[in-house]
Amino acid sequence: MKLATLRGPGRDGTLIVVRRDGLSYAPAGTAFPTLQSALDDWERAEPALRALADALESGNAAAEALDPHRLHAPLPRAYEWVDGSAYINHIVLVRKARGAEPPETLRTDPLVYQGGSGVLLGPTDDIVLRDARWGLDFEAEVCAILGDVPMGTTAEEAGRHVRLLCLANDVTLRNLVPAELAKGFGFFGSKPATAFSPFAVTPDELGDAWRGGRLHLTLRSTYNGALAGDPEAGPEMHFSFFDLIAHITKTRAFTAGTILGSGTVSNADRARGVSCLAERRMIETLEQGEAKTPFMREGDTIAIEMLDEAGHSVFGRIAQKVVAG
Amino acid sequence: MKLATLRGPGRDGTLIVVRRDGLSYAPAGTAFPTLQSALDDWERAEPALRALADALESGNAAAEALDPHRLHAPLPRAYEWVDGSAYINHIVLVRKARGAEPPETLRTDPLVYQGGSGVLLGPTDDIVLRDARWGLDFEAEVCAILGDVPMGTTAEEAGRHVRLLCLANDVTLRNLVPAELAKGFGFFGSKPATAFSPFAVTPDELGDAWRGGRLHLTLRSTYNGALAGDPEAGPEMHFSFFDLIAHITKTRAFTAGTILGSGTVSNADRARGVSCLAERRMIETLEQGEAKTPFMREGDTIAIEMLDEAGHSVFGRIAQKVVAG
Repeated sequence: MKLATLRGPGRDGTLIVVRRDGLSYAPAGTAFPTLQSALDDWERAEPALRALADALESGNAAAEALDPHRLHAPLPRAYEWVDGSAYINHIVLVRKARGAEPPETLRTDPLVYQGGSGVLLGPTDDIVLRDARWGLDFEAEVCAILGDVPMGTTAEEAGRHVRLLCLANDVTLRNLVPAELAKGFGFFGSKPATAFSPFAVTPDELGDAWRGGRLHLTLRSTYNGALAGDPEAGPEMHFSFFDLIAHITKTRAFTAGTILGSGTVSNADRARGVSCLAERRMIETLEQGEAKTPFMREGDTIAIEMLDEAGHSVFGRIAQKVVAG
Repeated sequence: MKLATLRGPGRDGTLIVVRRDGLSYAPAGTAFPTLQSALDDWERAEPALRALADALESGNAAAEALDPHRLHAPLPRAYEWVDGSAYINHIVLVRKARGAEPPETLRTDPLVYQGGSGVLLGPTDDIVLRDARWGLDFEAEVCAILGDVPMGTTAEEAGRHVRLLCLANDVTLRNLVPAELAKGFGFFGSKPATAFSPFAVTPDELGDAWRGGRLHLTLRSTYNGALAGDPEAGPEMHFSFFDLIAHITKTRAFTAGTILGSGTVSNADRARGVSCLAERRMIETLEQGEAKTPFMREGDTIAIEMLDEAGHSVFGRIAQKVVAG
C-alpha cells in the first residue's frame, strides 16, 4: 500500500491511504491520525490501513482527488534521520572532489551520519538558500522507514523492521562541508532540511524489485528540466539496508519512525549520469580539468522520482525549487 | 515550574507538574498529555501548567507522592538532540587524550554534533553495555529544551526560544570514537542513548543563576559513591546557549522539543574534579605518565545533579547503574 501525509491540521499532518495510481486517496481516520501514530502501533495499524487500501483500489471506499501540493513529507518530523553512504562510487568521487581520501574501511564498515529530523520538507517545498556561496546541491536517495529496532539486530533479522520505503533529496551545502568536517564532529549546518517523496510504500508494493535489502529500480533526477541521471539503485548499493540496520544498532536501539537513507545513488558507469552536482563537477574536473557546472542557484529546479518497470512513478515526484532566504 | 514525565501509558509518557521540593506532583491533564504536546502549543500550555504549579505549591491541587523510579526522561524521545561542546577545557583535554589537536576554530566556531534522539533514557535507567572494551564513560551536561526556532536566529533573539532547562548524562563509548571520527562523518555508535534528569524546569526557576544563556551553578557528578567533580557550569562555558542557538540555526530551523546540550561541564581548576572519566584519565597521564582510572564497568554507578545555593536539587538526580547487555 501507498501512504502519504496531508498538511495540517497539526504539525504532523493527516495520514492518508493513496490509490496505487497516486491520483486519489482516503483519510486513514481517527484511529491512526498521523503516520507516526500508525508506525507506533503497526501491528494494529497495518491491517486496518491495508483494508482501506483494498477498498480504495476496488472502488469501495470514498476517494478524493489528490493534489500533490497538499502533501507534506510522509513524516513531517521524525525522531531520527540516519543517512548512510552506501554507494562506493559516490564516496570515492565526492571525497576526491574535496581533496579527501576515502576511509580505509570503505568496503567493510558502513558510513552513516545522524541528520537533523525535526524539520523535514514536503515533496514540493521550496529549498530556501540564505547564501548562494554555500554551494547548494541535491542528493537523490532511497530511504527505509523503520519500526522499532532493538540494539544488536543482525542483517538477517533486519528485514522484518522495514515498514516503508520512500525517496529523499538530502540537500547539502557543499562549501560548508570541508570546514565542518575538519572540526571532527561530522555534518551539521552543511545538511539543512531534507525533502521526502510524496508516498511511502510498503515493501510488497515493489514486488521483486525489493530484494536483499536493496531497491532494484532506477532513480531519475531531473535538474532544470534536463535528465541529470538515472542510475540503478540496486546493484551498486555496497551495503544493503539490512547491513546498514545491523551497523546502526551495534550500540543503540531505534524507535518506530526512524528514517534510514541509502546515501546518494551512484553508478560507476558514467553514462548513467549523476544524482548530485558534486559528482558531475568532479567528473568534469577529471575529464576537462575544471568543474563547469555551478552549484544550485535561485530559481533552479530539481525533480526526483523512481519509475517501476511499467513506467509508473512508485513514490510520486519530489519537485522543488530554490528560493533565496 | 518543574515538569516531568511519568512512564506510560504511551511511548511518550504522561506529563506531570512537580512541586518545587520535588516530592509530589499532579498530572498535567488531558489537554497536554505529554511534554511534547505542551511544547508544541506552549502559548496555551504554559499558563495552564503554571496555574497548576501554583495550586500545587499552595496546597490547592490534589498532589500525589513522587517516586523517582517511575520517571522517564522529560522527553522519552525527542525530534532532535543537538549536543554542543562549549567548555574549552574539556575539548583540549579529551582531544589530547586521543592524540588529536583541538580544532583551529576552537574559540570562534562552536562544536556541536547531532545525537540520536529516538530512544532516550530516564534518570534511573540502567546503562546497557554490550562490550566492556568499548570504554564506557559518562558526561555530565546542562541542556536547554527549545521551542520552535527559525533559521537565522541571532544570539540576541535566542533567549526567547529557551523553554526549559535540564541535565543530561551523554553516555560515550570512548574506544569507539577514534575509528568513527576517522571516517569523517562524526559520532554515531560511539554515542549510545543519552539519559536525562527527572525534572525540566522553566528558566525563571533558576532566578539569577540563569543569566546570559549560562547556568551559574555547580554540577555534581558522583561516581561509585565518590565525588568525581563539582565544576561551575557558568563561567567557563565559552559559547553560551544563546551562541549555540545562533550557530545551529545558520542553515536550519528547529521544531519545538529540540534538546540542546552544553557539552561536558569542565573547569580549568583541577580541584573541581571532572564530569567524565576521559578527563581524569588524561590528567593522570599528564601527572603520572599513564591513565590509572579504567572506564566504567558492570555494576558501576553514576549520579549527576545540580544544587541551588540553598542546597536543593534543582533538576532531581540522574542515578544510573551499568549492566551487561
